[in-house]
Amino acid sequence: MSIEAKFHKLGTDNAPGQEVRQAGSEAESRFHGPKLDGTPVDFSHGDVDAHTPTPGAFDLFQQGVAIGGAQAYTEYRGDQQIRALLAPRLEEFTGAPVDARDGLMLTPGTQGALFLAVASTVDRGDKVAIVQPDYFANRKLVEFFGGEMLPVQLEYEQAAPDEAGLNLKQLEAAFKAGARVFLFSNPNNPTGVVYSADEIARIAALAARYGASVIVDQLYARLRYAGVNYTHLRAAQGLPENVVTIMGPSKTESLSGYRLGVAFGAPAILTRMEKLQAIVSLRAPGYSQAVLRGWFDEPEGWMSARIQLHQQIRDDLLEILRAVPGVTARTPMAGSYLFPRLPRLTLDPADFVRALRVQAGVTVTPGTEFSPHSAASVRLNFSQDRAASAAAMHRMAELIERYRA
Amino acid sequence: MSIEAKFHKLGTDNAPGQEVRQAGSEAESRFHGPKLDGTPVDFSHGDVDAHTPTPGAFDLFQQGVAIGGAQAYTEYRGDQQIRALLAPRLEEFTGAPVDARDGLMLTPGTQGALFLAVASTVDRGDKVAIVQPDYFANRKLVEFFGGEMLPVQLEYEQAAPDEAGLNLKQLEAAFKAGARVFLFSNPNNPTGVVYSADEIARIAALAARYGASVIVDQLYARLRYAGVNYTHLRAAQGLPENVVTIMGPSKTESLSGYRLGVAFGAPAILTRMEKLQAIVSLRAPGYSQAVLRGWFDEPEGWMSARIQLHQQIRDDLLEILRAVPGVTARTPMAGSYLFPRLPRLTLDPADFVRALRVQAGVTVTPGTEFSPHSAASVRLNFSQDRAASAAAMHRMAELIERYRA
Repeated sequence: MSIEAKFHKLGTDNAPGQEVRQAGSEAESRFHGPKLDGTPVDFSHGDVDAHTPTPGAFDLFQQGVAIGGAQAYTEYRGDQQIRALLAPRLEEFTGAPVDARDGLMLTPGTQGALFLAVASTVDRGDKVAIVQPDYFANRKLVEFFGGEMLPVQLEYEQAAPDEAGLNLKQLEAAFKAGARVFLFSNPNNPTGVVYSADEIARIAALAARYGASVIVDQLYARLRYAGVNYTHLRAAQGLPENVVTIMGPSKTESLSGYRLGVAFGAPAILTRMEKLQAIVSLRAPGYSQAVLRGWFDEPEGWMSARIQLHQQIRDDLLEILRAVPGVTARTPMAGSYLFPRLPRLTLDPADFVRALRVQAGVTVTPGTEFSPHSAASVRLNFSQDRAASAAAMHRMAELIERYRA
Repeated sequence: MSIEAKFHKLGTDNAPGQEVRQAGSEAESRFHGPKLDGTPVDFSHGDVDAHTPTPGAFDLFQQGVAIGGAQAYTEYRGDQQIRALLAPRLEEFTGAPVDARDGLMLTPGTQGALFLAVASTVDRGDKVAIVQPDYFANRKLVEFFGGEMLPVQLEYEQAAPDEAGLNLKQLEAAFKAGARVFLFSNPNNPTGVVYSADEIARIAALAARYGASVIVDQLYARLRYAGVNYTHLRAAQGLPENVVTIMGPSKTESLSGYRLGVAFGAPAILTRMEKLQAIVSLRAPGYSQAVLRGWFDEPEGWMSARIQLHQQIRDDLLEILRAVPGVTARTPMAGSYLFPRLPRLTLDPADFVRALRVQAGVTVTPGTEFSPHSAASVRLNFSQDRAASAAAMHRMAELIERYRA
């Protein structure tokens, strides 16, 4: 395979945030009806102007700058003192020990952690179990390193309300077929479902039995709605040896502009990740690392208020969407993604996504980014201004009617 | 090759800044004599406390935070307005056009640009011409992507004062042997030599003749000493199509803590780099990108003062080093690296580097990081406090005498 072919598979044209690079399209000749007025809403990512960064984040950054050289040039795996500060907090949050020296790394965003973790576990020809649907970069990462993807379906639409719906038989079949790594997000991106304690226990048992490494992306694990139980894989009984957990403050805490994430777990994998970090971008941005001092140490009540407001927006949007005949949507248990299934339309899914943006000022991410079987769905990050997002949802409802088949 | 073997080659134990992770060593039983008192100096990287960041950098960061979401979530290749601002400045600096839309990318540090550029040009089995000595990550990057390195010697010790000393016959032989890519730094890291106009013209002609891509790391291209002529490869006549130039404000401008770099040149390569950036760490840190607004727009006289002070430190250290019998050092033409060759010692080179740190508080980087043929040399980044670095150099001179063979 040529390098051109290798990169052809890394398409980003429909990736969230890249819409600005799309040129005009002949698809627009199939659009009809007037443009719908209203504040444009970009549901491809959260709005950090509507839900502002954690209080004190900028001050911590400023303190990092004041520290100077020691904060600018940290170990590749990140500042030792900050790791020592975070380890007990992550330990408390996840219910299992975190080794600040050898078992924790600061990364340039959660994306940075994912890239390093996959690069450190997946080599050419390795089989990797990947959930469908799941975060769109997972598939691309495996393909980039020459791995072979073994898909495992997440039957979230059929699952019980307290389960994610992972097809565990398919997961076991993937391990039997030789999958060395299982990579998944919990809460799931894009559906917002959370794996039950039983699902997590069975994933841990299967990975242990077949000797597989597990990379679990828990980016949204703090933004959980009322009544939802969350089980950390790393605290499961009979855990396999090679587990890496990934988190970061870019979403719930709105700190994406600082480019921060963490990876913690198996030292053997983290050692490889650090070696690779040394040639990828040296370290998580030095001064930004200081912002992590405030992570898991937010003002009293801040996190619960943020969760409550997101739950209200979630419920607003679900009510509007579910009033549209043929639209179905499972209620997200955590995170800020909605993944509704739309009825049959006269435009094909990609063109409808474009019509939403061009005619209604509503930017969403096509379902096919997350699974080849999700063409009828779109993903919306509802971490938005409450009134603007409700109005945008009404415009989306109107366009669904306009293009209903 | 197993993934363990793949990562074994990515050693970082002796990489600059990682010394903190080294455990005690049996080598220390071979040390003798007292510890030498004095302010410890870490020559493995520049001291941004001694040479502080460009005035106004923090204010620009703060303005980026104030912009909010639009600055936190930019295109993967970086904020469009900032690219539009930088393109004419880079054009003026390098003497050749820069396409802000398709030919310029903001990256997480210069390291980030290098990683993406190598990943976008080198695939498994590809031959790559690499200079010896050169920046240590170049070799590791090629190896990580499964490329085959064809070394080309930089005969900097024998070259004329206005030449870098690249063995152009070896470069042509590498192209004849199938090298598809030539990767090099100019000014050279670690020696500080600058390629002459004639050398650059011949590199351009050879790359064009053999259809090779060229990645040129010009990180230190702004810190040039009195009387040095600098030729930008990208402005050469008869340039090959696929040239990417890499720069960044981490060194001369002391902005390393913001993690910023740029790559500019061939749109085909930059398009691949952006696709990869999307899965590596999404983008250069959003708020940090705003700091680039001040790049190439420093206060009148600031850059010349910085260069002058570095030239003084360079000359101080060279005078101390050259007074030690058997030490030779070419005068750096640009950048802030010294790469002296040491006389024969009773300790092997790795142990002497450790003795310098443990017994004299002087941290340097072993020459073998840059070339297998450079074991007798060490690299010092002399962007340090002037008095402290001179004192440290006297301690190094004393240890050379102590361990002279």
